[in-house]
Amino acid sequence: MSLSKATVVAQVLPNSPQPGKQADAFAPSNIALCKYWGKRDRELNLPVNASLSISLGSLGSQTRITPADGHDQVWLNGQRLELDTNFSRKVLEFIGLFRRDLQQSVMVETVNNIPTAAGLASSASGFAALMLALNEFYQLQLNPEQLSAFARMGSGSASRSMFDGFVEWHKGQQPDGMDSFAEPLPQSWPGFCIGLLKVCTAEKTVDSRAGMQRTLETAPLYQSWPQQAEQDLKTLKQAIYQRNFTRLGETAEQNALSMHATMIAAWPPLLYWQPESVAAMQRVWQLRAAGTEIYLTMDAGPNLKLLFQSSDIELVRQAFPELQAPDIVTPFD
Amino acid sequence: MSLSKATVVAQVLPNSPQPGKQADAFAPSNIALCKYWGKRDRELNLPVNASLSISLGSLGSQTRITPADGHDQVWLNGQRLELDTNFSRKVLEFIGLFRRDLQQSVMVETVNNIPTAAGLASSASGFAALMLALNEFYQLQLNPEQLSAFARMGSGSASRSMFDGFVEWHKGQQPDGMDSFAEPLPQSWPGFCIGLLKVCTAEKTVDSRAGMQRTLETAPLYQSWPQQAEQDLKTLKQAIYQRNFTRLGETAEQNALSMHATMIAAWPPLLYWQPESVAAMQRVWQLRAAGTEIYLTMDAGPNLKLLFQSSDIELVRQAFPELQAPDIVTPFD
Repeated sequence: MSLSKATVVAQVLPNSPQPGKQADAFAPSNIALCKYWGKRDRELNLPVNASLSISLGSLGSQTRITPADGHDQVWLNGQRLELDTNFSRKVLEFIGLFRRDLQQSVMVETVNNIPTAAGLASSASGFAALMLALNEFYQLQLNPEQLSAFARMGSGSASRSMFDGFVEWHKGQQPDGMDSFAEPLPQSWPGFCIGLLKVCTAEKTVDSRAGMQRTLETAPLYQSWPQQAEQDLKTLKQAIYQRNFTRLGETAEQNALSMHATMIAAWPPLLYWQPESVAAMQRVWQLRAAGTEIYLTMDAGPNLKLLFQSSDIELVRQAFPELQAPDIVTPFD
Repeated sequence: MSLSKATVVAQVLPNSPQPGKQADAFAPSNIALCKYWGKRDRELNLPVNASLSISLGSLGSQTRITPADGHDQVWLNGQRLELDTNFSRKVLEFIGLFRRDLQQSVMVETVNNIPTAAGLASSASGFAALMLALNEFYQLQLNPEQLSAFARMGSGSASRSMFDGFVEWHKGQQPDGMDSFAEPLPQSWPGFCIGLLKVCTAEKTVDSRAGMQRTLETAPLYQSWPQQAEQDLKTLKQAIYQRNFTRLGETAEQNALSMHATMIAAWPPLLYWQPESVAAMQRVWQLRAAGTEIYLTMDAGPNLKLLFQSSDIELVRQAFPELQAPDIVTPFD
C-alpha cells in the first residue's frame, strides 16, 4: 500500500504556507545515461533502479509563479491553456500539494527553450523548475534533497533535472520515498558533447509511464533489467571518474538499447522506433565502425541522442548534417 | 569439455560404411514459433532451450548423393561449386562424419525450392535432407531420433526439418547430445497459413551462429531467455492442442521479439532489422489493430514471417500485396 503524495508532503511540511509573491526558477533538461525504467511505487514515482543523467545546461524550462485574482491560470510557451488540459491538471495538482488549504490563486507560466527539433520530453525540466519556483513562492526552505524528492513526485526524472552536470538518482528504500532523490556528481567533463537528433515527427502512442508499466508486467526479460541497470550505473560512475569516454559511451548505449529491448519483449510489443530511427542508428554504427567515437542513447520515443567529444564535432556534423548548432549541447563548456 | 562430432557418430556407428549407391531425399524448411537461441555446446549444436517449429511442406531442400570418380563434387541449385567454398566445406565435413575411412568419392547435388523472395535460411532443410540422403546412401538404418540428432550436428534447426507439421526439438541433457532430437507433434491445423514476407535484400553481416554466441556472452537480458522460452514452448503446445490461434500467434510473436530483444541488448548491439522491417512490423500491428488475426515472427535477419488463418487470406493479401502465391504456405492443406 502506497502513501499518497499529500501524506508525504505533510510529513515534511506540516502547515499550510503563507500567501506567496512572484517567484522564478529554471531547471535543465536531462538525458539519462543509465535509464529510469520501471516503478516500484506508481503514486510516488519510486524507481526500480537507480539512474544517472547529464543535464543540458541552459536547455530546459523556465517557470514563473505569480499571485492571480480569482482563478488559477496556466500558461505554456506564451499561450494560456484551458484548465482541463492534461498539462494544466498535472501542474495544478502538483501546486495543490504545497498550496494545501491556502486560498490564493496563482498564475503559472512555463517556457521551454528546448529546440523544437530535438524531440525531448519537457516534463523532467518542467516539474523541476516548478518545484524550485514553489519553494521560492511559498518560502518552503526545502533543501536540495527534499526539492529533488518532491520534484520526483511530479515526474520521476524531474528529480535529476534539479541539478547541473552528471546527476545520480538514488532509488532509495523508504516507503515515503524521501531517500529517493538525486545528487550531482562532482566530476565535470569539458568537451563532452550531446547531439539531439530528431529523426521523425511521429507522435508516440504510448507514454513512458504506461510503457514502463506494461514492460514491467508483461516482459519476462525485464527480470534481468534491475541488475543490469545497477551494474551499468557503477560502470558509468567509474567511466566518469576516469574520463574514459569509450567505457561511458558503450555502457550508455547498451543500457539504452537494453531498455528498448525490454519494451520490445513486452506484450503487446512496444516499439518506439520508427524506420527512420533504425536508419539513424545504422548511421551511428557506420560512423563508429569508421573510427569516430560516437554512441547513441534513446528514450521512450523515436529520436536519438548522440554522445561524442568536441574533438570529433566536425566529423559528426558531416555525418549528420541535420544537426544544427542548437542541437549540439556541451554541458561543461 | 565438449565431445567431438566424430566421437558421437562413432558411438552409434562403430564401423565405416560400405560404398553407397545413389540416394535421394527431401526435407522441408521450418519456421520456429519458439526460437532456438543459444548453445550450451557449440561443437554439437546443443541448445540452451527447447524449441518448436512448423515445417513448410514442400518448400525445402532436395538432395541427391551419387558415387563419383576421383574427386568429390558439390552442386547447389544446378551449379558446381568450388570445394573451398564455405558451403562445400560444410557439406563435405558433414559427409566425412559418416564416410569415415571409406575410399569413395561422392557427388552431392542440393536443390533448394524455397522462393528466392522469401529470404529463408536453407541450412536447416539442407542438413536434414543431407542426413536423410546419407542414411540411405550408406544404409545406416538410423531411426528418426538418431537422424534428427545427427542432422542437428550440421545445423541446430536441421533437427526440426526432419519432420512435417509442428515439431518440437528437445534440448536434452546428455553430453553426447543423443537425447537432443526433434519429434513431430501429432496435431494438424488445417487453414494455418504462413506468409513469407521479404522486406529487403540487405546481406546480414553477422550469421546466426555468431549472433547467438555474442548475445549469450554479452547481453545481461539473455539471462531471462531460457526460462521464457521454456514457458513459451508450453504455451504454444497448449495452443496447438486447443487450436487457439490467438494464443499461438501472441506467444510466437512475443517469443520472436524477445529473441531479437536479447540481441539488441548485446554488445556490440546486434540489430538484424532494417528500416523496412520496422515499417512491415508496423503494418502487421495496424492490420491486427483493425481486427485481423495476424502475427509476425522473425529469425536472425530482416524479413518477416506472417502467421494467419486461411479465412483471413484475402485481407492479408490486400494489406501485403507483395505476397505472391508461392510466398503463402499452408502446411496442413
